[in-house]
Amino acid sequence: MSSAPPPGRPRPGGRTARIRTQVLAAVSAELAENGYDALTVDSVAARSGVHRTTVYRRWRDVGGLLTDLLDSTSDDDWQPTDTGSLRGDLAALNREIQTSLTERPSIATALIAASFRSDEAARALRRLWDDRYERCEVVVERAIQRGELPPGIDARALLVAATAPLYHQLVLLGTPPDPRLPEHAAETAALAASAGAFDRPQDSGDVEGE
Amino acid sequence: MSSAPPPGRPRPGGRTARIRTQVLAAVSAELAENGYDALTVDSVAARSGVHRTTVYRRWRDVGGLLTDLLDSTSDDDWQPTDTGSLRGDLAALNREIQTSLTERPSIATALIAASFRSDEAARALRRLWDDRYERCEVVVERAIQRGELPPGIDARALLVAATAPLYHQLVLLGTPPDPRLPEHAAETAALAASAGAFDRPQDSGDVEGE
Repeated sequence: MSSAPPPGRPRPGGRTARIRTQVLAAVSAELAENGYDALTVDSVAARSGVHRTTVYRRWRDVGGLLTDLLDSTSDDDWQPTDTGSLRGDLAALNREIQTSLTERPSIATALIAASFRSDEAARALRRLWDDRYERCEVVVERAIQRGELPPGIDARALLVAATAPLYHQLVLLGTPPDPRLPEHAAETAALAASAGAFDRPQDSGDVEGE
Repeated sequence: MSSAPPPGRPRPGGRTARIRTQVLAAVSAELAENGYDALTVDSVAARSGVHRTTVYRRWRDVGGLLTDLLDSTSDDDWQPTDTGSLRGDLAALNREIQTSLTERPSIATALIAASFRSDEAARALRRLWDDRYERCEVVVERAIQRGELPPGIDARALLVAATAPLYHQLVLLGTPPDPRLPEHAAETAALAASAGAFDRPQDSGDVEGE
Protein backbone atom coordinates (compact mmCIF):
# COMPACT_ATOMS: atom_id res chain seq x y z
CA MET A 1 0.00 0.00 0.00
CA SER A 2 3.01 2.30 -0.39
CA SER A 3 2.24 5.33 -2.53
CA ALA A 4 5.79 5.74 -3.89
CA PRO A 5 5.66 7.14 -7.45
CA PRO A 6 6.99 5.13 -10.39
CA PRO A 7 10.66 5.89 -11.16
CA GLY A 8 11.24 8.94 -13.34
CA ARG A 9 8.21 10.82 -12.06
CA PRO A 10 8.84 13.48 -9.42
CA ARG A 11 7.31 12.62 -6.06
CA PRO A 12 4.08 14.58 -5.70
CA GLY A 13 4.95 16.87 -2.89
CA GLY A 14 3.67 17.71 0.50
CA ARG A 15 0.06 18.28 1.32
CA THR A 16 -1.60 16.64 -1.72
CA ALA A 17 0.34 13.40 -1.26
CA ARG A 18 -0.27 13.44 2.50
CA ILE A 19 -4.02 13.87 1.99
CA ARG A 20 -4.09 10.95 -0.47
CA THR A 21 -2.20 8.74 1.98
CA GLN A 22 -4.58 9.62 4.82
CA VAL A 23 -7.72 9.13 2.74
CA LEU A 24 -6.64 5.80 1.21
CA ALA A 25 -5.60 4.47 4.62
CA ALA A 26 -9.09 5.37 5.86
CA VAL A 27 -10.72 3.57 2.89
CA SER A 28 -8.68 0.42 3.67
CA ALA A 29 -9.54 0.51 7.34
CA GLU A 30 -13.27 1.20 6.82
CA LEU A 31 -13.56 -1.50 4.16
CA ALA A 32 -11.72 -4.10 6.20
CA GLU A 33 -13.61 -3.34 9.42
CA ASN A 34 -17.12 -2.60 8.20
CA GLY A 35 -17.31 -3.84 4.60
CA TYR A 36 -18.56 -2.24 1.41
CA ASP A 37 -22.09 -1.59 2.65
CA ALA A 38 -20.87 0.80 5.34
CA LEU A 39 -18.36 2.57 3.08
CA THR A 40 -19.36 6.16 2.31
CA VAL A 41 -17.42 9.27 1.34
CA ASP A 42 -18.52 10.78 4.66
CA SER A 43 -17.27 7.84 6.77
CA VAL A 44 -13.93 7.93 4.95
CA ALA A 45 -13.63 11.71 5.41
CA ALA A 46 -14.44 11.45 9.11
CA ARG A 47 -11.92 8.68 9.71
CA SER A 48 -9.16 10.33 7.66
CA GLY A 49 -9.52 13.75 9.27
CA VAL A 50 -9.63 15.30 5.78
CA HIS A 51 -12.45 17.77 5.05
CA ARG A 52 -15.36 16.05 3.32
CA THR A 53 -15.52 18.74 0.61
CA THR A 54 -11.93 17.87 -0.35
CA VAL A 55 -12.73 14.14 -0.47
CA TYR A 56 -15.86 14.69 -2.59
CA ARG A 57 -14.01 17.03 -4.98
CA ARG A 58 -11.06 14.73 -5.50
CA TRP A 59 -12.63 11.22 -5.33
CA ARG A 60 -16.31 11.97 -6.14
CA ASP A 61 -17.80 8.71 -4.76
CA VAL A 62 -17.11 5.26 -3.30
CA GLY A 63 -16.16 3.92 -6.74
CA GLY A 64 -13.56 6.66 -7.10
CA LEU A 65 -12.12 5.91 -3.65
CA LEU A 66 -11.84 2.16 -4.31
CA THR A 67 -10.32 2.70 -7.75
CA ASP A 68 -7.66 5.00 -6.35
CA LEU A 69 -6.91 2.57 -3.50
CA LEU A 70 -6.42 -0.27 -5.99
CA ASP A 71 -4.38 1.86 -8.39
CA SER A 72 -2.16 3.06 -5.53
CA THR A 73 -1.37 -0.58 -4.71
CA SER A 74 0.29 -0.93 -8.14
CA ASP A 75 2.63 1.96 -7.30
CA ASP A 76 4.74 -0.20 -4.99
CA ASP A 77 7.93 -2.04 -5.88
CA TRP A 78 6.64 -5.55 -5.06
CA GLN A 79 8.51 -8.37 -6.76
CA PRO A 80 8.10 -12.14 -6.36
CA THR A 81 10.65 -13.79 -4.06
CA ASP A 82 13.60 -15.57 -5.70
CA THR A 83 13.95 -18.86 -3.79
CA GLY A 84 16.15 -20.63 -6.34
CA SER A 85 13.52 -22.96 -7.82
CA LEU A 86 10.27 -22.71 -9.76
CA ARG A 87 8.40 -24.72 -7.16
CA GLY A 88 9.81 -22.61 -4.34
CA ASP A 89 9.00 -19.31 -6.07
CA LEU A 90 5.41 -20.40 -6.77
CA ALA A 91 4.98 -21.63 -3.19
CA ALA A 92 6.26 -18.31 -1.81
CA LEU A 93 3.81 -16.44 -4.06
CA ASN A 94 0.96 -18.70 -2.94
CA ARG A 95 1.83 -18.18 0.72
CA GLU A 96 1.55 -14.42 0.18
CA ILE A 97 -1.84 -14.89 -1.53
CA GLN A 98 -3.10 -17.22 1.21
CA THR A 99 -2.07 -14.73 3.90
CA SER A 100 -3.72 -11.81 2.11
CA LEU A 101 -6.98 -13.76 1.76
CA THR A 102 -7.10 -15.18 5.28
CA GLU A 103 -5.74 -12.42 7.53
CA ARG A 104 -8.42 -10.67 9.58
CA PRO A 105 -9.40 -8.11 8.52
CA SER A 106 -8.55 -9.00 4.91
CA ILE A 107 -8.45 -5.96 2.66
CA ALA A 108 -7.99 -8.31 -0.33
CA THR A 109 -11.22 -10.19 0.39
CA ALA A 110 -13.06 -6.91 1.02
CA LEU A 111 -11.85 -5.53 -2.34
CA ILE A 112 -12.96 -8.70 -4.15
CA ALA A 113 -16.40 -8.42 -2.53
CA ALA A 114 -16.53 -4.72 -3.50
CA SER A 115 -15.68 -5.63 -7.11
CA PHE A 116 -19.04 -7.42 -7.32
CA ARG A 117 -20.77 -4.14 -6.40
CA SER A 118 -18.88 -1.50 -8.34
CA ASP A 119 -17.88 -1.93 -12.00
CA GLU A 120 -15.25 0.75 -11.52
CA ALA A 121 -13.71 -1.19 -8.59
CA ALA A 122 -13.90 -4.42 -10.64
CA ARG A 123 -11.92 -2.83 -13.47
CA ALA A 124 -9.34 -1.43 -11.05
CA LEU A 125 -8.96 -4.81 -9.31
CA ARG A 126 -8.41 -6.50 -12.66
CA ARG A 127 -5.76 -3.90 -13.61
CA LEU A 128 -4.04 -4.66 -10.30
CA TRP A 129 -4.12 -8.43 -10.85
CA ASP A 130 -2.87 -7.96 -14.40
CA ASP A 131 0.05 -5.90 -13.05
CA ARG A 132 0.84 -8.55 -10.40
CA TYR A 133 0.75 -11.47 -12.85
CA GLU A 134 2.98 -9.50 -15.22
CA ARG A 135 5.54 -8.93 -12.47
CA CYS A 136 5.39 -12.66 -11.66
CA GLU A 137 6.39 -13.67 -15.18
CA VAL A 138 10.02 -13.32 -14.06
CA VAL A 139 9.47 -16.48 -11.98
CA VAL A 140 9.02 -18.42 -15.22
CA GLU A 141 11.91 -16.60 -16.94
CA ARG A 142 14.21 -17.57 -14.06
CA ALA A 143 13.06 -21.21 -14.32
CA ILE A 144 13.94 -21.17 -18.04
CA GLN A 145 17.37 -19.62 -17.33
CA ARG A 146 18.04 -22.29 -14.68
CA GLY A 147 17.14 -24.99 -17.20
CA GLU A 148 14.14 -26.15 -15.14
CA LEU A 149 11.80 -25.45 -18.06
CA PRO A 150 12.33 -25.21 -21.83
CA PRO A 151 11.88 -21.81 -23.54
CA GLY A 152 8.52 -20.98 -25.09
CA ILE A 153 6.37 -21.47 -21.97
CA ASP A 154 3.02 -19.67 -21.59
CA ALA A 155 4.03 -17.93 -18.35
CA ARG A 156 0.62 -16.40 -17.61
CA ALA A 157 -1.20 -19.74 -18.00
CA LEU A 158 1.32 -21.38 -15.66
CA LEU A 159 0.94 -18.61 -13.06
CA VAL A 160 -2.86 -18.71 -13.22
CA ALA A 161 -2.84 -22.52 -12.83
CA ALA A 162 -0.52 -22.24 -9.81
CA THR A 163 -2.55 -19.57 -8.01
CA ALA A 164 -6.15 -20.32 -9.08
CA PRO A 165 -6.76 -23.09 -6.48
CA LEU A 166 -6.00 -20.59 -3.68
CA TYR A 167 -8.58 -18.10 -4.91
CA HIS A 168 -11.11 -20.81 -5.73
CA GLN A 169 -10.83 -22.54 -2.34
CA LEU A 170 -10.58 -19.44 -0.15
CA VAL A 171 -12.79 -16.91 -1.98
CA LEU A 172 -15.47 -18.95 -3.73
CA LEU A 173 -15.63 -22.38 -2.07
CA GLY A 174 -14.94 -20.91 1.38
CA THR A 175 -12.98 -23.95 2.56
CA PRO A 176 -10.96 -23.46 5.76
CA PRO A 177 -7.35 -22.46 4.94
CA ASP A 178 -5.18 -25.55 4.39
CA PRO A 179 -1.59 -24.76 5.38
CA ARG A 180 -0.32 -27.24 2.75
CA LEU A 181 -2.32 -25.72 -0.12
CA PRO A 182 0.23 -23.02 -1.15
CA GLU A 183 2.97 -25.65 -1.56
CA HIS A 184 0.65 -28.23 -3.07
CA ALA A 185 -0.79 -25.91 -5.73
CA ALA A 186 2.77 -24.76 -6.55
CA GLU A 187 3.99 -28.34 -6.88
CA THR A 188 1.01 -29.30 -9.06
CA ALA A 189 1.69 -26.44 -11.49
CA ALA A 190 5.45 -27.17 -11.55
CA LEU A 191 4.81 -30.87 -12.29
CA ALA A 192 2.35 -29.97 -15.05
CA ALA A 193 4.89 -27.50 -16.49
CA SER A 194 7.61 -30.16 -16.51
CA ALA A 195 5.17 -32.49 -18.31
CA GLY A 196 4.74 -29.86 -21.06
CA ALA A 197 1.31 -28.48 -20.08
CA PHE A 198 2.32 -24.86 -20.75
CA ASP A 199 4.53 -25.30 -23.83
CA ARG A 200 3.39 -22.98 -26.59
CA PRO A 201 2.71 -24.69 -29.93
CA GLN A 202 6.07 -24.90 -31.75
CA ASP A 203 5.01 -23.19 -34.98
CA SER A 204 3.87 -20.02 -33.21
CA GLY A 205 7.05 -19.69 -31.16
CA ASP A 206 8.74 -17.27 -33.56
CA VAL A 207 5.81 -15.05 -34.41
CA GLU A 208 4.77 -14.17 -30.88
CA GLY A 209 3.48 -10.64 -30.69
CA GLU A 210 2.52 -10.43 -34.36
CA MET B 1 -32.85 -26.27 -12.14
CA SER B 2 -35.20 -29.27 -12.12
CA SER B 3 -37.05 -29.64 -8.84
CA ALA B 4 -37.40 -33.41 -9.04
CA PRO B 5 -37.20 -34.92 -5.55
CA PRO B 6 -34.36 -37.25 -4.55
CA PRO B 7 -35.16 -40.93 -5.17
CA GLY B 8 -37.10 -42.60 -2.38
CA ARG B 9 -38.94 -39.45 -1.33
CA PRO B 10 -42.51 -39.10 -2.61
CA ARG B 11 -42.90 -36.20 -5.05
CA PRO B 12 -44.47 -33.30 -3.18
CA GLY B 13 -47.80 -33.05 -4.86
CA GLY B 14 -49.83 -30.52 -6.67
CA ARG B 15 -50.18 -26.92 -5.65
CA THR B 16 -47.27 -26.61 -3.19
CA ALA B 17 -44.78 -28.00 -5.69
CA ARG B 18 -46.21 -25.86 -8.49
CA ILE B 19 -45.91 -22.71 -6.39
CA ARG B 20 -42.30 -23.51 -5.56
CA THR B 21 -41.47 -24.07 -9.24
CA GLN B 22 -43.11 -20.78 -10.21
CA VAL B 23 -41.43 -18.78 -7.46
CA LEU B 24 -37.95 -20.22 -8.02
CA ALA B 25 -38.22 -19.66 -11.78
CA ALA B 26 -39.08 -16.03 -11.02
CA VAL B 27 -36.06 -15.69 -8.68
CA SER B 28 -33.75 -17.04 -11.43
CA ALA B 29 -35.19 -14.75 -14.06
CA GLU B 30 -35.13 -11.62 -11.84
CA LEU B 31 -31.59 -12.31 -10.67
CA ALA B 32 -30.26 -12.99 -14.14
CA GLU B 33 -31.97 -9.98 -15.71
CA ASN B 34 -31.73 -7.34 -12.99
CA GLY B 35 -29.16 -8.59 -10.49
CA TYR B 36 -29.19 -8.88 -6.72
CA ASP B 37 -29.85 -5.19 -6.06
CA ALA B 38 -33.23 -5.32 -7.77
CA LEU B 39 -34.25 -8.63 -6.17
CA THR B 40 -37.08 -8.26 -3.67
CA VAL B 41 -39.77 -10.57 -2.37
CA ASP B 42 -42.31 -8.28 -4.03
CA SER B 43 -40.64 -8.36 -7.47
CA VAL B 44 -40.44 -12.16 -7.27
CA ALA B 45 -44.08 -12.44 -6.21
CA ALA B 46 -45.22 -10.14 -9.03
CA ARG B 47 -43.25 -12.03 -11.66
CA SER B 48 -44.29 -15.48 -10.41
CA GLY B 49 -47.98 -14.66 -10.18
CA VAL B 50 -47.99 -16.11 -6.65
CA HIS B 51 -49.60 -14.00 -3.91
CA ARG B 52 -46.97 -11.99 -2.02
CA THR B 53 -48.33 -13.11 1.36
CA THR B 54 -47.63 -16.72 0.35
CA VAL B 55 -44.09 -15.85 -0.77
CA TYR B 56 -43.34 -13.92 2.45
CA ARG B 57 -44.76 -16.72 4.61
CA ARG B 58 -42.85 -19.51 2.90
CA TRP B 59 -39.51 -17.83 1.98
CA ARG B 60 -39.41 -14.86 4.41
CA ASP B 61 -36.81 -12.75 2.55
CA VAL B 62 -34.33 -12.57 -0.35
CA GLY B 63 -31.87 -14.80 1.53
CA GLY B 64 -34.55 -17.47 1.91
CA LEU B 65 -35.42 -17.30 -1.80
CA LEU B 66 -31.79 -17.61 -2.91
CA THR B 67 -31.12 -20.45 -0.48
CA ASP B 68 -34.10 -22.42 -1.75
CA LEU B 69 -33.11 -21.77 -5.39
CA LEU B 70 -29.61 -23.09 -4.69
CA ASP B 71 -30.85 -26.06 -2.67
CA SER B 72 -33.36 -26.95 -5.41
CA THR B 73 -30.47 -27.14 -7.90
CA SER B 74 -29.01 -30.05 -5.90
CA ASP B 75 -32.26 -31.98 -6.33
CA ASP B 76 -31.50 -32.85 -9.95
CA ASP B 77 -29.87 -36.01 -11.26
CA TRP B 78 -26.86 -34.32 -12.85
CA GLN B 79 -23.84 -36.57 -13.36
CA PRO B 80 -20.52 -35.83 -15.08
CA THR B 81 -20.26 -37.11 -18.66
CA ASP B 82 -18.37 -40.37 -19.23
CA THR B 83 -16.19 -39.72 -22.29
CA GLY B 84 -13.85 -42.68 -21.79
CA SER B 85 -10.80 -40.77 -20.50
CA LEU B 86 -9.85 -38.63 -17.52
CA ARG B 87 -8.82 -35.73 -19.74
CA GLY B 88 -12.03 -35.98 -21.74
CA ASP B 89 -14.24 -36.15 -18.65
CA LEU B 90 -12.53 -33.11 -17.08
CA ALA B 91 -12.77 -31.17 -20.35
CA ALA B 92 -16.50 -31.94 -20.62
CA LEU B 93 -16.99 -30.75 -17.04
CA ASN B 94 -15.01 -27.57 -17.75
CA ARG B 95 -17.05 -26.87 -20.88
CA GLU B 96 -20.22 -27.03 -18.77
CA ILE B 97 -18.68 -24.65 -16.22
CA GLN B 98 -17.48 -22.23 -18.92
CA THR B 99 -20.95 -22.19 -20.51
CA SER B 100 -22.70 -21.59 -17.17
CA LEU B 101 -20.36 -18.68 -16.40
CA THR B 102 -20.45 -17.01 -19.82
CA GLU B 103 -24.03 -17.47 -21.07
CA ARG B 104 -26.10 -14.28 -20.96
CA PRO B 105 -27.85 -13.94 -18.65
CA SER B 106 -25.74 -16.17 -16.39
CA ILE B 107 -27.61 -17.36 -13.33
CA ALA B 108 -24.35 -18.90 -12.03
CA THR B 109 -22.52 -15.56 -12.11
CA ALA B 110 -25.51 -13.81 -10.55
CA LEU B 111 -25.58 -16.38 -7.71
CA ILE B 112 -21.85 -15.95 -7.09
CA ALA B 113 -22.31 -12.16 -6.93
CA ALA B 114 -25.26 -12.64 -4.55
CA SER B 115 -23.12 -14.86 -2.31
CA PHE B 116 -20.97 -11.80 -1.52
CA ARG B 117 -24.10 -10.02 -0.25
CA SER B 118 -25.97 -12.69 1.67
CA ASP B 119 -24.26 -15.10 4.09
CA GLU B 120 -27.22 -17.44 3.74
CA ALA B 121 -26.81 -17.52 -0.06
CA ALA B 122 -23.04 -18.01 0.36
CA ARG B 123 -23.63 -21.07 2.56
CA ALA B 124 -26.19 -22.49 0.12
CA LEU B 125 -23.86 -21.93 -2.86
CA ARG B 126 -21.06 -23.73 -1.02
CA ARG B 127 -23.37 -26.66 -0.24
CA LEU B 128 -24.22 -26.82 -3.94
CA TRP B 129 -20.56 -26.78 -5.01
CA ASP B 130 -19.75 -29.41 -2.41
CA ASP B 131 -22.52 -31.62 -3.82
CA ARG B 132 -21.26 -31.08 -7.39
CA TYR B 133 -17.63 -31.87 -6.55
CA GLU B 134 -18.76 -34.98 -4.68
CA ARG B 135 -20.70 -36.20 -7.72
CA CYS B 136 -17.61 -35.53 -9.87
CA GLU B 137 -15.41 -37.84 -7.81
CA VAL B 138 -16.66 -40.70 -10.02
CA VAL B 139 -14.53 -39.16 -12.80
CA VAL B 140 -11.42 -39.99 -10.78
CA GLU B 141 -12.76 -43.43 -9.77
CA ARG B 142 -13.30 -44.27 -13.44
CA ALA B 143 -9.75 -43.15 -14.28
CA ILE B 144 -8.42 -45.47 -11.57
CA GLN B 145 -10.56 -48.37 -12.87
CA ARG B 146 -9.26 -47.75 -16.42
CA GLY B 147 -5.70 -47.84 -15.10
CA GLU B 148 -5.07 -44.19 -16.07
CA LEU B 149 -4.26 -43.31 -12.47
CA PRO B 150 -3.05 -45.36 -9.50
CA PRO B 151 -5.40 -45.86 -6.50
CA GLY B 152 -5.10 -43.46 -3.56
CA ILE B 153 -5.62 -40.20 -5.46
CA ASP B 154 -6.99 -37.10 -3.69
CA ALA B 155 -9.98 -36.79 -6.03
CA ARG B 156 -11.23 -33.46 -4.64
CA ALA B 157 -7.81 -31.78 -4.99
CA LEU B 158 -7.57 -33.02 -8.58
CA LEU B 159 -11.07 -31.75 -9.42
CA VAL B 160 -10.44 -28.36 -7.82
CA ALA B 161 -7.14 -28.01 -9.72
CA ALA B 162 -8.89 -28.88 -13.00
CA THR B 163 -11.76 -26.44 -12.56
CA ALA B 164 -10.21 -23.56 -10.58
CA PRO B 165 -8.64 -21.78 -13.60
CA LEU B 166 -12.12 -21.46 -15.16
CA TYR B 167 -13.56 -19.74 -12.10
CA HIS B 168 -10.46 -17.63 -11.55
CA GLN B 169 -10.26 -16.38 -15.15
CA LEU B 170 -13.98 -15.89 -15.76
CA VAL B 171 -15.29 -14.78 -12.34
CA LEU B 172 -12.39 -12.95 -10.68
CA LEU B 173 -9.91 -11.94 -13.40
CA GLY B 174 -12.70 -11.21 -15.89
CA THR B 175 -10.65 -12.34 -18.90
CA PRO B 176 -12.64 -12.89 -22.12
CA PRO B 177 -13.66 -16.55 -22.46
CA ASP B 178 -10.91 -18.59 -24.15
CA PRO B 179 -12.50 -21.50 -26.06
CA ARG B 180 -9.35 -23.59 -25.43
CA LEU B 181 -9.36 -23.05 -21.65
CA PRO B 182 -11.72 -25.94 -20.72
CA GLU B 183 -9.50 -28.45 -22.56
CA HIS B 184 -6.28 -26.82 -21.46
CA ALA B 185 -7.14 -26.74 -17.76
CA ALA B 186 -8.30 -30.39 -18.02
CA GLU B 187 -5.07 -31.43 -19.74
CA THR B 188 -2.96 -29.58 -17.15
CA ALA B 189 -4.68 -31.35 -14.24
CA ALA B 190 -4.47 -34.74 -15.99
CA LEU B 191 -0.73 -34.28 -16.67
CA ALA B 192 -0.14 -33.23 -13.05
CA ALA B 193 -2.14 -36.26 -11.85
CA SER B 194 -0.06 -38.61 -14.02
CA ALA B 195 3.07 -37.01 -12.53
CA GLY B 196 1.83 -37.89 -9.03
CA ALA B 197 0.63 -34.46 -7.90
CA PHE B 198 -2.52 -35.81 -6.25
CA ASP B 199 -1.17 -39.08 -4.79
CA ARG B 200 -2.02 -39.31 -1.12
CA PRO B 201 0.95 -39.95 1.19
CA GLN B 202 1.46 -43.72 1.29
CA ASP B 203 1.32 -44.12 5.07
CA SER B 204 -2.10 -42.47 5.39
CA GLY B 205 -3.67 -44.54 2.61
CA ASP B 206 -5.21 -47.11 4.96
CA VAL B 207 -6.47 -44.81 7.69
CA GLU B 208 -8.55 -42.51 5.52
CA GLY B 209 -11.66 -41.39 7.33
CA GLU B 210 -10.24 -41.98 10.81
